[in-house]
Amino acid sequence: MESISSFAELTAHLTSVNCRKRLAVANAVDSHTLDAVLRAVDIGIIEAFLIGDVALIESPHLFEQEHSPFIHIIDIPDVLAATLEAVRMVKSGEADILMKGLVNTDVLLRAILDKEKGLLPAGNILTYNAALQIPSYHKLIFISDPVVIPSPTLVQRTAMIKYAIATAYKFGIVKPKVALIHATEIANPKIHYMQDYLDILQEWRNGEFGDVIIDGPLDIFLALDKDRGSIKNVPSPVLGDADILIFPNFECANCFYKGVSLFGHAEMGGLLQGTEKPVVLTSRSESVDSKFYSIAMACVLTT
Amino acid sequence: MESISSFAELTAHLTSVNCRKRLAVANAVDSHTLDAVLRAVDIGIIEAFLIGDVALIESPHLFEQEHSPFIHIIDIPDVLAATLEAVRMVKSGEADILMKGLVNTDVLLRAILDKEKGLLPAGNILTYNAALQIPSYHKLIFISDPVVIPSPTLVQRTAMIKYAIATAYKFGIVKPKVALIHATEIANPKIHYMQDYLDILQEWRNGEFGDVIIDGPLDIFLALDKDRGSIKNVPSPVLGDADILIFPNFECANCFYKGVSLFGHAEMGGLLQGTEKPVVLTSRSESVDSKFYSIAMACVLTT
Repeated sequence: MESISSFAELTAHLTSVNCRKRLAVANAVDSHTLDAVLRAVDIGIIEAFLIGDVALIESPHLFEQEHSPFIHIIDIPDVLAATLEAVRMVKSGEADILMKGLVNTDVLLRAILDKEKGLLPAGNILTYNAALQIPSYHKLIFISDPVVIPSPTLVQRTAMIKYAIATAYKFGIVKPKVALIHATEIANPKIHYMQDYLDILQEWRNGEFGDVIIDGPLDIFLALDKDRGSIKNVPSPVLGDADILIFPNFECANCFYKGVSLFGHAEMGGLLQGTEKPVVLTSRSESVDSKFYSIAMACVLTT
Repeated sequence: MESISSFAELTAHLTSVNCRKRLAVANAVDSHTLDAVLRAVDIGIIEAFLIGDVALIESPHLFEQEHSPFIHIIDIPDVLAATLEAVRMVKSGEADILMKGLVNTDVLLRAILDKEKGLLPAGNILTYNAALQIPSYHKLIFISDPVVIPSPTLVQRTAMIKYAIATAYKFGIVKPKVALIHATEIANPKIHYMQDYLDILQEWRNGEFGDVIIDGPLDIFLALDKDRGSIKNVPSPVLGDADILIFPNFECANCFYKGVSLFGHAEMGGLLQGTEKPVVLTSRSESVDSKFYSIAMACVLTT
């Protein structure tokens, strides 16, 4: 498998594999979610179970007919009950991927985190990994964590890195390059997460992270731009070619991706990490494209 | 005065004012610094005192002749001595603006922070404010703090906001809109700086910050993009129209500006804040444009 370096390549890869994944959507009634799911059904990468309040879907029968036999509508008007049913389907193996529709994030998370019926194995760390496609960068960038963990501990950050590496492997990246991001390349000991960065580098040298290159601290210029990076004369095996950015905290990852989305025309897909099965949990304000890319990302992770 | 909404307007304003500021540069021997200074001399906004190791300047006499009488070269081969002399000139009033040339930042900062001979009045907080020009945003954005204070306290953050507002006023912005940035618009009490944000909003309502609008927490989308902001239905007087972004921490501000510089073609000028006189302190890897805009920003602040 060649490495996948854009969302177009991701979609092409999935259609060539020709194997539909079963997607359970909790309360798929909003148009962004429905449009994204339909697109994924129509190009042949998923079979969808839309669980929720059918009365809120415009022309549900027509909708089902047009796209059958790969759309199944399950009418459960109560949002909580619909959410629990979607989680149950994924947990039992009746579906491969869980997706959030018009459900409050807290409600879905509570269902996922339920110790008996949820999707997070004991001891696993719940975090988030997003794939960013920036037109002027030469490949996808995986970033962690823009949403879930405000200020990661060493254990959490180690898990974040491992999840991101596993995702990169699924995208066919043979030896992912990981940048531990900071404001500069100087390992200032006064910065509270710097010792964690140094510990992670030591663990990497010990072979803890597998076939991968990790370097840091690096700033955004050093991680993503060979030219600007070179001016500073910082020798780094990651210089200008990072696949994975691990951010100090979630505001930092969040502001970075929103800035490049808004002003650099970046597009994003993302998934919760740590769960038994992939979970698409995008915010309501995210675009149809973003939701569609997230579904596609989930499909490649279940292969 | 009309408000200045781009670096081109800033330059036009300064040339129309027709009043040269005196700029003292500590070891102005690198080409980026020299080119930026020369450009500012040539358009008539500064008179430059280049203090440093003349032997390192290519053709210093020719250089001086071509641009005289507004270039003065003061030969002090020792970098520390040159730095102290530049600071002394600004402190004594012989110059209006201090600029860093090829000097280690620590050396310059130590000279600025010296209690007797330095430029930071007792009790003032040293921080950084940058002006970002992003082609697809409708005006300049002032951001604080991408460089100096890793994790601001309430007192530091209050000072950062006041400096940024003072700068915005100098740019002719009558009622600046300030966004307190976070990953979302939800004031999660578990986030360590959230109480500071709420305290700042209360102080603002008490009239503490003057003629200004402050709102937060807001994410980057809500602060800078009306369309995306509107989807979330968050009513904010700042929505999509922020002049000033106050970031949670310096990595966050740093990654935001580097991301939009790299992928959104943003350009930046910036100054230390809290000093008696403006200080241009850009990193070696920054462009000639960036250094030039910083000088121009310093000029407008001394009027």
